[in-house]
Amino acid sequence: MAIGIFDSGIGGLTVFREISKEYPYTDIYYLGDTARVPYGNKSKETIIRYSLECGEYLKGFNIDVLVIACNTASSYALDILKNYLNIPVIGVVLPGVKTALKFTKNKKIGVIGTTATIKSNSYKKFLLKEDKDLEVYQKPCPLFVPLVEEGMLNNQITKLIIKEYLDDLIDKGIDTLILGCTHYPLLKDSIKSIYPNINIVDSSKATTEFLKDIYKPKKENRLRKIFITDESQNFINLKNILLEENVEVEKLELSKICKL
Amino acid sequence: MAIGIFDSGIGGLTVFREISKEYPYTDIYYLGDTARVPYGNKSKETIIRYSLECGEYLKGFNIDVLVIACNTASSYALDILKNYLNIPVIGVVLPGVKTALKFTKNKKIGVIGTTATIKSNSYKKFLLKEDKDLEVYQKPCPLFVPLVEEGMLNNQITKLIIKEYLDDLIDKGIDTLILGCTHYPLLKDSIKSIYPNINIVDSSKATTEFLKDIYKPKKENRLRKIFITDESQNFINLKNILLEENVEVEKLELSKICKL
Repeated sequence: MAIGIFDSGIGGLTVFREISKEYPYTDIYYLGDTARVPYGNKSKETIIRYSLECGEYLKGFNIDVLVIACNTASSYALDILKNYLNIPVIGVVLPGVKTALKFTKNKKIGVIGTTATIKSNSYKKFLLKEDKDLEVYQKPCPLFVPLVEEGMLNNQITKLIIKEYLDDLIDKGIDTLILGCTHYPLLKDSIKSIYPNINIVDSSKATTEFLKDIYKPKKENRLRKIFITDESQNFINLKNILLEENVEVEKLELSKICKL
Repeated sequence: MAIGIFDSGIGGLTVFREISKEYPYTDIYYLGDTARVPYGNKSKETIIRYSLECGEYLKGFNIDVLVIACNTASSYALDILKNYLNIPVIGVVLPGVKTALKFTKNKKIGVIGTTATIKSNSYKKFLLKEDKDLEVYQKPCPLFVPLVEEGMLNNQITKLIIKEYLDDLIDKGIDTLILGCTHYPLLKDSIKSIYPNINIVDSSKATTEFLKDIYKPKKENRLRKIFITDESQNFINLKNILLEENVEVEKLELSKICKL
């Protein structure tokens, strides 16, 4: 009995952290494909292949449920992974959508994410499937991930870049903004300080709520294990910021393990 | 008789362009490992393995000389590639160093690049090997690559980020700045407009000068071929900006070809 989580890199540790809090006695395996991060600027075929490799690896630990803590992979590989693994698989897109629908009053919703996530239109499609009268405004924000990884969470440049990307969305009259990338919750305070009246959907929290509805483990153990495919400096930095507890970290070589 | 060039991605197209101009009648093969870009935040072992795969692939085209148009790979994999391939291999580091030494009058030199390039200290080591009295000041600038790929080459945010990164170096009194990343030449005009008195070393030009000294092909053909490991949007954008001529582009899967 265990939960598996993967991300293209380290942003998904925001999801790992939330799920760890909610499942204190359940085994949790996290795989960050840090050797091949980011997925956001890769083609669809490459994103699917990488996601299958991650899912296949985690299934080796007898996980009951897989969480794709990566918006790009959720956008492109969710259905394929469900079919391939034959266990429940949840992405971060649908939980974000459901939460946004609860928040919005004027039915105008903004979505921000990596170029690939926005290009996939997956948030927009899911939102309009739930309510065809919504107005959805999207914007890719490729500078946000490096800003977070630089630790520039709250300075003048960060605020200018936030305004550069988001003023357009605000001008459209949105009352709710979905942070469609697992790095972005670390910019939440800055965004909130510029636009205090906007509802912000944090996908790490939304996904954990969603998981709680579908997964109630019977037998409980407690193991935390993080696999990465490359020990980058960014991983070390964010691990120290995001993880409160000591977790086991192992580096592995996916291409030698998976034969897809 | 041919020249091989590889980069972790598309920044090396600045080098491809300069070399193409200087060798109008020579076959040139360029490999951009766009599926695994960037190398800059990978570990040393991963960077070496990827570089060997790129070098091995290009050697299959009977190249006479290999140009590593990637500062990160030049910093970590140059000597290993020389031994492995047994042909002349030149990186972008030494040419940048030689050019900076020609420019500087006060012997104070700044070096900017990705985190991995700066951490490797390769520019600093080469500079001090040439002249131990130099003062070398280094700075990683992780936001510059996404800025270039966003096409934000010359706006207010770009200038603020340039100042955020470079004011410290200027305060040290440098008279020469090495752009230690192949993307950075596209920010040269912006940097020059803020610091008009600084000599700027553009590695694509410096490397081409260096190549001209060591490689004079006897037989001349003319083929231009670009291999990429992933057809990303960033590649398409920069290809359109950087390449004046129509070149053949082929997508390939390095992991299926190389058995390292």
